Amino acid sequence: MSVNVSEDTGSTFVAVILAGGSGMRFWPLSREISPKQLLSIFGTESLVAQAIHRVLPYVEPGSGGVRIVTGERLVDELRDHLAAHEDSRLQNVTYLVEPMSRNTAPAIALAAAALVIEDPDAVMIVLPSDHLLDDGPEWADAIASARSLAEAGMLVTIGTRPNRVEPGYGHIRGGQPLGEFDRGSAHPVRAVEFIEKPDALRAAAFVADGGYFWNAGIFVMRASVLLEELRAASLDGRQIAETAEWVVAHPDEPSECRRRFGGLPSLSIDYAVMERSERVAVIPGDLHWSDVGSLLALGDVADADSNGTVRSGRGIDIETQDSIVYSTDRLVATLGLKDTIIVDTRDATLVLAKDRAQDVRKVVDALRAAGAEEVILPKVSLRPWGSWTSLLVGPGYQIKLLEIKPGCKPSLQRHHHRSEHWIVVAGAALVTLERETSEVHVNEGAYIPMGAVHRIANCGKVPLKVIEVQLGEYVGEDDIERLEDDWNRGDR
Amino acid sequence: MSVNVSEDTGSTFVAVILAGGSGMRFWPLSREISPKQLLSIFGTESLVAQAIHRVLPYVEPGSGGVRIVTGERLVDELRDHLAAHEDSRLQNVTYLVEPMSRNTAPAIALAAAALVIEDPDAVMIVLPSDHLLDDGPEWADAIASARSLAEAGMLVTIGTRPNRVEPGYGHIRGGQPLGEFDRGSAHPVRAVEFIEKPDALRAAAFVADGGYFWNAGIFVMRASVLLEELRAASLDGRQIAETAEWVVAHPDEPSECRRRFGGLPSLSIDYAVMERSERVAVIPGDLHWSDVGSLLALGDVADADSNGTVRSGRGIDIETQDSIVYSTDRLVATLGLKDTIIVDTRDATLVLAKDRAQDVRKVVDALRAAGAEEVILPKVSLRPWGSWTSLLVGPGYQIKLLEIKPGCKPSLQRHHHRSEHWIVVAGAALVTLERETSEVHVNEGAYIPMGAVHRIANCGKVPLKVIEVQLGEYVGEDDIERLEDDWNRGDR
Repeated sequence: MSVNVSEDTGSTFVAVILAGGSGMRFWPLSREISPKQLLSIFGTESLVAQAIHRVLPYVEPGSGGVRIVTGERLVDELRDHLAAHEDSRLQNVTYLVEPMSRNTAPAIALAAAALVIEDPDAVMIVLPSDHLLDDGPEWADAIASARSLAEAGMLVTIGTRPNRVEPGYGHIRGGQPLGEFDRGSAHPVRAVEFIEKPDALRAAAFVADGGYFWNAGIFVMRASVLLEELRAASLDGRQIAETAEWVVAHPDEPSECRRRFGGLPSLSIDYAVMERSERVAVIPGDLHWSDVGSLLALGDVADADSNGTVRSGRGIDIETQDSIVYSTDRLVATLGLKDTIIVDTRDATLVLAKDRAQDVRKVVDALRAAGAEEVILPKVSLRPWGSWTSLLVGPGYQIKLLEIKPGCKPSLQRHHHRSEHWIVVAGAALVTLERETSEVHVNEGAYIPMGAVHRIANCGKVPLKVIEVQLGEYVGEDDIERLEDDWNRGDR
Repeated sequence: MSVNVSEDTGSTFVAVILAGGSGMRFWPLSREISPKQLLSIFGTESLVAQAIHRVLPYVEPGSGGVRIVTGERLVDELRDHLAAHEDSRLQNVTYLVEPMSRNTAPAIALAAAALVIEDPDAVMIVLPSDHLLDDGPEWADAIASARSLAEAGMLVTIGTRPNRVEPGYGHIRGGQPLGEFDRGSAHPVRAVEFIEKPDALRAAAFVADGGYFWNAGIFVMRASVLLEELRAASLDGRQIAETAEWVVAHPDEPSECRRRFGGLPSLSIDYAVMERSERVAVIPGDLHWSDVGSLLALGDVADADSNGTVRSGRGIDIETQDSIVYSTDRLVATLGLKDTIIVDTRDATLVLAKDRAQDVRKVVDALRAAGAEEVILPKVSLRPWGSWTSLLVGPGYQIKLLEIKPGCKPSLQRHHHRSEHWIVVAGAALVTLERETSEVHVNEGAYIPMGAVHRIANCGKVPLKVIEVQLGEYVGEDDIERLEDDWNRGDR
């Protein structure tokens, strides 16, 4: 097989960001409705915002340049989360909703099937939404090389040169070098080899060899080639490709889409295509990539003290060694611990042995089985207009703190099952109730009867803080009818 | 020396309960303003309520039968706490306020000095407010015997027969048995021997010997004899006795009282008198006594699971061994821990190695030095009328949940620095605002302007729950002027 590579072919280039995962290995920081990709603890913005910024300079400008593949359940939360970002380009992403969650091969096939309809020659870069990566010059070089190769019909994976022995990561053995592929000439390549989680000895040998790279889950390829190779790889691959195409062609048949898509095998893209195709290449880079795979990653958010303990949040550690203490709001103190991780949030705390960080799923599964809502819902939720925090929930009532940014306003809305009392504790509000609008200042309040159309806006120059007392037979988030919204959100 | 013992001498018999301790070894369950003696986690009522019930059948009925010695800072909290008890006899205790906290010898001398003025022959039983004890027939027998001996001029300590080797406890070696002391005949005794925290080998030998008892800190003696023996014991003892008498005689000179009392040496009653006097006797009993001395005591509040872990509160333990998980409100989960204690409260969490339970003070001291208010104030406070819970504190505002028992009402009051918004979320309220009184029901509210005289009462049959939004330049507990109160509380 010969590969022709050119520098600028002009094919459509879009990014597909996989954001369907629940990332429950980060519980209690992550929740089903607020998964790991929404965490803003690694760097200055959330992992999904970092993923978007990582590809934004390279893709088509405007709508359709960045596509987020996720589940029905997360799409609203993601949209609200990105709308709250100060960079308005993050609101300009499009969403592709998986009918069911079926691992990466069906998700990527869905994106590819949608893309080939728009442009049969389109090239896509597929990347996870919840990893860390250094997006400097090496990243730019890797993308340029990968794109050229993809234009030439290759399935390209961007790998990371290992800087330590890491048996927890998937490894890729590069084939014969392609040589000057990024300057127009190319070599034929054989399929690269994928090694999922080697033992420590093999991982060490890989580092010594130099020809192995970490599988960062980043792929660059023509959508058409991906579907072709998927179809050719196996009967499962064929079913995945055909179902993805069927789903894209039948947006008006959601229940049949769910049935068909839900019937697909749950396969990773690596297993379904990359390990089988002869058209795979790997492009390595020193990308300082991390999959942020467990709570151990919290050990990187601050420097360790003289006992080797890393702390983030209020409190104190007395003679606690080689531990990680991460608290979002509350005071946490430790005394004489060793190799322990503590993760403390507003409504739930997890304490675990450091060597058990891979098993947090067990805790989450047990809590879910016990019906603990702390697995599902966060106590604080970012909104485009600011945030809300649940202070207390009881039978027939809920108390929230609303924080609204200057110049912002939540939607014009009404509730069918609750009335609301607002008391302004900081800032200045403009409250609309049915046809009346009036200013409400600190130490003043407003009463919103059940069913009444209402809106609150921050008409001041400082953050508006409002205590909201909700009363009614049902105080769930989904009792909301939106009549007008600055972010075009529907009834959510 | 000869001892004459009679069965019923008719001397005044009162109880002096020492409740000045901060019990910070139980942080974060205990706080400076809500110390260990107020904890209701060991049995069905608080430790101080248990202490009162332990002596109530034996002392003079009515006012003055039970006297609580405590500090200025705790007296209001203790009074509110006991007023909230369903047994109204607990409101009928009197308080003796130490001008400064100076350990047990000055505190007991103060109680003795006050008592001898009322009745020079009075006998007192002195006991801690924060221990556990079985107050069955053995206790009744021990009190009767101790009282007889005390009438005869002895300083009697009631000891506990050890049921295990416990190097952490003070031990008492009994002298030559007094024989038939409780039936009128008596033997001379030499001073008993006090051994503070022996090593494990000695503690084991004490158990084998059978003649050693645990020092439970319970003393029965004539007030006059205590002062006499204290005076005779040493120059320090003399200063303590004389200062106590001076303080009692000068209630109108509080600052001089503080100066003199604060100048006393901080001595325990054991060290100041019991280890020195020749008139000491010990009466042993099988009292199942515990000093509830550290967080390890939480291991007794529930049965251990198959991994040896004791849990109280919501959550789950996965493969966690020989640990203690105690949570008051929130969800706490553990994974793979060993020999760890977790104590979780609404606003603070402590995680420690089990073998460090004696060192919790270090954590508290460090947090206090860092200015953490979680060391001082509880987030929930019992009141005679129910309780309040602080949900959120911010600059210029505080949000509370008030829970008011049926038929109860907090005081008629006003605040100089804050206004309050009330919203009823459960039950029915009668709200008085200046001269107006009106019923406020669920989903209704009331606004109390700064300076306005107001009162809220539960006029219904179920608990009244009210969200209170406080707004003002100062939202501290002490901005309260009480005009009328069902519990005769002043401006607190």
